[in-house]
Amino acid sequence: MNLLLAWPGNETLAQSLGLALSVPVESPVTRRFPDGEAYLRVGEVRGRDVAIVASLDRPDEKTLPLLFLADALRAEGAASVGLIAPYLAYLRQDRQFLRGEAVTSRTFARLLSGAFQWLVTVDPHLHRYHSLGEIYSIETAVVHAAPEIAAWIKANVESPLVIGPDSESEQWVSEIAGAIGAPYATLEKTRRGDRDVEVTIPRIERWPGHTPVLADDIVSTGRTMVAAIGRLAELKRLAPVCIGVHAIFAQDAWQALMAAKPARIATCNTIEHPTNAIDLTAALAAGIRKLV
Amino acid sequence: MNLLLAWPGNETLAQSLGLALSVPVESPVTRRFPDGEAYLRVGEVRGRDVAIVASLDRPDEKTLPLLFLADALRAEGAASVGLIAPYLAYLRQDRQFLRGEAVTSRTFARLLSGAFQWLVTVDPHLHRYHSLGEIYSIETAVVHAAPEIAAWIKANVESPLVIGPDSESEQWVSEIAGAIGAPYATLEKTRRGDRDVEVTIPRIERWPGHTPVLADDIVSTGRTMVAAIGRLAELKRLAPVCIGVHAIFAQDAWQALMAAKPARIATCNTIEHPTNAIDLTAALAAGIRKLV
Repeated sequence: MNLLLAWPGNETLAQSLGLALSVPVESPVTRRFPDGEAYLRVGEVRGRDVAIVASLDRPDEKTLPLLFLADALRAEGAASVGLIAPYLAYLRQDRQFLRGEAVTSRTFARLLSGAFQWLVTVDPHLHRYHSLGEIYSIETAVVHAAPEIAAWIKANVESPLVIGPDSESEQWVSEIAGAIGAPYATLEKTRRGDRDVEVTIPRIERWPGHTPVLADDIVSTGRTMVAAIGRLAELKRLAPVCIGVHAIFAQDAWQALMAAKPARIATCNTIEHPTNAIDLTAALAAGIRKLV
Repeated sequence: MNLLLAWPGNETLAQSLGLALSVPVESPVTRRFPDGEAYLRVGEVRGRDVAIVASLDRPDEKTLPLLFLADALRAEGAASVGLIAPYLAYLRQDRQFLRGEAVTSRTFARLLSGAFQWLVTVDPHLHRYHSLGEIYSIETAVVHAAPEIAAWIKANVESPLVIGPDSESEQWVSEIAGAIGAPYATLEKTRRGDRDVEVTIPRIERWPGHTPVLADDIVSTGRTMVAAIGRLAELKRLAPVCIGVHAIFAQDAWQALMAAKPARIATCNTIEHPTNAIDLTAALAAGIRKLV
């Protein structure tokens, strides 16, 4: 791979990836006509192996222009076109929960597989699929954020107690905690309504004096973290450090989380956001090198 | 075809098409998760020939969910899936004007052709393509708005002078004018800058007392109509009636056009808008019957 293209909003990560991989970074021309249609233009790419750096949060407005860009690169003679999507969208709907539902993960995977030759992402939200290969027909590589998150906690939090959002996260938080010799727990949730979630933290009395570190893969509405911060306050524990891999922060989520007064919020740089503090450049570069 | 699905914002036209074609009309469940991803669910469609009514103005946020919906219909056993897109997007970029540009019309046509078996639209903005068949690999039918526009002018405007926006529109405005025995002219534009267009109306002195009728296929920024209204005021002519097939009205276009004080604005119901006055239901129903 010998050219990186930064999708708008991904310039910072693209530049650091370019440095790590010794690959030049360019930006395609992207704009919108007044009627909302996208315009795209690429530079000289003939014979080059190109990868686009484009995190796929808020995917609907982004995907169509991204498919246009991939087509334009091929039309201009690029030797190959890959996608570095640090956050990959549309994995939630991995089957029909109700009859008639669109299984959007399959359609989305087919569209991307038709436009790109390979895909690298970070911690995709896989539940019933065991690997991206079940729905993506192109080569994929998955980068794990856990080692960098563990290193960040070790460097920044004294006496941490790592807390995952639910029982499904146990494997992930135990990996982070194990890497730094810290204890861990997972929240137990009782949902009372759409926005009313009660959480309990089993066995937390076993670790007095530890700093709680709430870690989640995706911070979307942030409600679970807000509920957990509230519970920790009731227990008169230290305000927690909140860590997320993917800083989606839907709608007012960031403000709501700040209002709950955590000690700190730190996210990985898979989606550009002011809370980015954990740099995955090296891990992503290694993942890319494995594929191309 | 025995089921119409109304895409959000297309309910009014879908209902009147349903009546005209004696076909039931349903609405798919469409919503967004807080993180911006689309959720879609369809009803019982096994063995049915389904058509979605979805005008494609502001196409980027709409196209991905629309492709999901088409896939869901197929997965649920629909016998066929067609698209009634009264306004069809992405026809402007029909070649590279500058090296490296994405020819978005081709990619867009390939995506829709992969999702639908047929397509009906109204007056697509074709320039260098002679027909949709050059880029769409599915059956297409084009409905012309001119007869209904001519009938509306005849019923609503006394002594009309039909004026097209540019020399390319001559064939279209001459058809409208010819149908009602009215004279016609086309604007000549001198562009002085991005938003500064000067227009002249050749030979307008030949038709004193006529009511100017400015007719355009797409009203996007509305700037040409605003300039023409200003020119007519300078000539101390009657305020014109403004007619558009496709009521895009990008950003503040509607307000800007209202502020120029035309006698009236009337658009066809290809894009739902308060100015809709010219009903193309019968013409669209005839176009659909030709295909299915």
